[in-house]
Amino acid sequence: MSLMNHQLSSSSTISSSSSTFLAPTDFNSRRKSIKVQVKKFGACKCVAAPHEEKIAFKTKVSRNANMAKLQAGYLFPEIARRRAAHLLKYPDAKVISLGIGDTTEPIPEVITSAMEKRANALSTLEGYSGYGAEQGEKPLRAAIASKFYSNLGIEEDDIFVSDGAKSDISRLQVAFGSNVTMAVQDPSYPAYVDSSVIMGQTGQFQKDVQKYGNIEYMRCTPENDFFPDLSKVSRTDVIFFCSPNNPTGSAASREQLTQLVQFAKKNGSILVYDSAYALYMSNDNPRSIFEIPGARQVAIEISSFSKYAGFTGVRLGWTVVPKELLFSDGFPVAKDFNRIVCTCFNGASNVAQSGALACLSPEGFKAMQEVIGFYKENTKIIVETFNSLGFKVYGGKNAPYVWVHFPGRSSWEVFSEVLEKTHVVTTPGSGFGPGGEGFVRVSAFGHRENILEACKRFKQLYK
Amino acid sequence: MSLMNHQLSSSSTISSSSSTFLAPTDFNSRRKSIKVQVKKFGACKCVAAPHEEKIAFKTKVSRNANMAKLQAGYLFPEIARRRAAHLLKYPDAKVISLGIGDTTEPIPEVITSAMEKRANALSTLEGYSGYGAEQGEKPLRAAIASKFYSNLGIEEDDIFVSDGAKSDISRLQVAFGSNVTMAVQDPSYPAYVDSSVIMGQTGQFQKDVQKYGNIEYMRCTPENDFFPDLSKVSRTDVIFFCSPNNPTGSAASREQLTQLVQFAKKNGSILVYDSAYALYMSNDNPRSIFEIPGARQVAIEISSFSKYAGFTGVRLGWTVVPKELLFSDGFPVAKDFNRIVCTCFNGASNVAQSGALACLSPEGFKAMQEVIGFYKENTKIIVETFNSLGFKVYGGKNAPYVWVHFPGRSSWEVFSEVLEKTHVVTTPGSGFGPGGEGFVRVSAFGHRENILEACKRFKQLYK
Repeated sequence: MSLMNHQLSSSSTISSSSSTFLAPTDFNSRRKSIKVQVKKFGACKCVAAPHEEKIAFKTKVSRNANMAKLQAGYLFPEIARRRAAHLLKYPDAKVISLGIGDTTEPIPEVITSAMEKRANALSTLEGYSGYGAEQGEKPLRAAIASKFYSNLGIEEDDIFVSDGAKSDISRLQVAFGSNVTMAVQDPSYPAYVDSSVIMGQTGQFQKDVQKYGNIEYMRCTPENDFFPDLSKVSRTDVIFFCSPNNPTGSAASREQLTQLVQFAKKNGSILVYDSAYALYMSNDNPRSIFEIPGARQVAIEISSFSKYAGFTGVRLGWTVVPKELLFSDGFPVAKDFNRIVCTCFNGASNVAQSGALACLSPEGFKAMQEVIGFYKENTKIIVETFNSLGFKVYGGKNAPYVWVHFPGRSSWEVFSEVLEKTHVVTTPGSGFGPGGEGFVRVSAFGHRENILEACKRFKQLYK
Repeated sequence: MSLMNHQLSSSSTISSSSSTFLAPTDFNSRRKSIKVQVKKFGACKCVAAPHEEKIAFKTKVSRNANMAKLQAGYLFPEIARRRAAHLLKYPDAKVISLGIGDTTEPIPEVITSAMEKRANALSTLEGYSGYGAEQGEKPLRAAIASKFYSNLGIEEDDIFVSDGAKSDISRLQVAFGSNVTMAVQDPSYPAYVDSSVIMGQTGQFQKDVQKYGNIEYMRCTPENDFFPDLSKVSRTDVIFFCSPNNPTGSAASREQLTQLVQFAKKNGSILVYDSAYALYMSNDNPRSIFEIPGARQVAIEISSFSKYAGFTGVRLGWTVVPKELLFSDGFPVAKDFNRIVCTCFNGASNVAQSGALACLSPEGFKAMQEVIGFYKENTKIIVETFNSLGFKVYGGKNAPYVWVHFPGRSSWEVFSEVLEKTHVVTTPGSGFGPGGEGFVRVSAFGHRENILEACKRFKQLYK
């Protein structure tokens, strides 16, 4: 490289990007080409010239009208922005984040060491691997099928490994296209509605009711035990349903899920079931929609290691699309989803997949459940705190989320009050849909001392 | 766990999926709930009963008409299928794959050790990290900006880190929506056209011309030096352009790219420039579209570590969306792309991002270039082989692909002939568009001995 470096430093007009791209010199002379380059970069440099910055050139490409329908930013970046603004206002405040539901505890070593081994193997001839199957590595698909779905008629090839549930929600929406109608729990995880808006399945946002047109919002409140009154729900092509639910923390019973599957079957709808919190359940409600008879003919299940193994940054999830699930023309949904996975995705990181496989080993699974147990203890502490303050509190038992009711108050107002007076970041319930208005979601993901400190501050604020 | 295990083994009717999901018993008794479960699972078990399998239930959801437009499978899985079929026919054949362009050489240890360190850190309190910024970790975005784009007016916040170029191509299409028109080089990487079809930007596939309706195919042939005659190209909203090109291996010159940027500017088009092979270039053609004056007002650049560092399985790429790029209403394209990244994606794996950062360290970058140099040597060997056999050969000098001309013959016919007689997998040129008919792409990704062996077999077949 020394000669090249010399040539570069001696030709100050060469952009360092171009020097970066200098190819190994095993093909003909660089010196000559660099000489040529020098002149050219004289012209090129004006790219960055300030006077040009001022000219605002517009393309003739119309902005995607569906993107324009989206309200504000996606919820969680919005909360991150407000957290940052608060830190500017109170630089010395010890801010505790019980907001976006980000995991905080280290990943068990039995799992990280598997990722280390895989990363190391990639530096060896024997251990190197390039493109994997877009659907995921066979041993991982097999392990997921047998660990979570054995006896439920789900096989290895029904499992699609992904870089996370959020990505797969959008890939499913892309597979469904613009002409489907959809229903969601209200409140629910914003990615369902936002991805539907982006795909053009909805109408405009209606400020008065805080809803998008052409989406069926299935209201879930304490009055209906957070399970929608299906007799009042219109038929849609797709139904997104998350249980245990984010944000309410409620888990549907076997009877309720049986109703839901029968409802989907009666309407010929596709049920997209999000079970990302199933391992947090304390009671015997179903962990998978496929425990319900007939579900494989109407349901897809999305899940993730994010909240189980602390993989929020490692990125690894999966989606189950049973071969029995058919479009109205008899074409298997799995075939179209597979085409999307092969065309719009190239598989999850091989290192992350090795981590996930370790999560499903006996030791890995035990370690993972201990982390879950830790967060469940956090949840108990938060629930007891708000109970002791006389609040009506929901969720918690089957999910890492506590759903606190502030009757008659605005969620964002409570969010701001809590942030301003306790420096604790929560999530305003209305961010999950109009049905969340008057509630605040408190996440149980945090170090124990932070959970205890946050609860102490809540007690000071609301005593 | 022992008590739980005992309870499980004593209740044989419990589905193992359900046992898998048994939560830590820090919340009330399992024994009672399990007793309840046992009855319920009696009913549940029939889900898997064979008689039910036979009933083919169809939902009332119409299949996405755009998905139905897609021809056959995505090219590379299709080739993998044919390779597998060949192996069934010739179980003992030593098949050499110079087809899908999968990397084969180990990742330099300076890079994998960074991934090991990050994976290990995730098991510690200090080193653990959960959700990262959806756009990528700040140090990596900064390193990409300074390493590849300094002096080109591209800043850290113009860089979006992704899980690979293929995923970002689709995310860009989702951001653009269904109502844009698009142009592609013919031949070109199939993901551009297929993602456009999936988004509904195109008409039906026209068998006679082997093209989709409403796509502008910019023919690239030896006659026009593989650069389209822009005077014959109709205006489209989006222009996908890959240089160095996959599959032809040709790299556009500064003059040609200046023409292209002026063409986009004149038409108010958005140019999506794929520079995933830039580091393979041997001459002084631009490595980035942003070396061309004015490009930031019309261009997006997609790139990837896949073919640089052997990250085809690790999954890490990036997309540059300059703030100066505006839709016709003046809205910044970057804002909509950012919204897609935040709503439909959750950032690339943190372990992979640490690997990418190591790729950009002085040692990592040098090691990466040595791997590239190795593949470039492979390319030379393949080029010389086909030259010696009297074939017209294109590409090679600036890309890891050799584009071999078989005038008057069908690409798939040649693909089959080569596979049948030499057990070498190539890629039929027509798989990249009608303009690829009569060509075969030979990839230079392979161990040296396999490249030499494949070339020996080519010489036997075509001597």
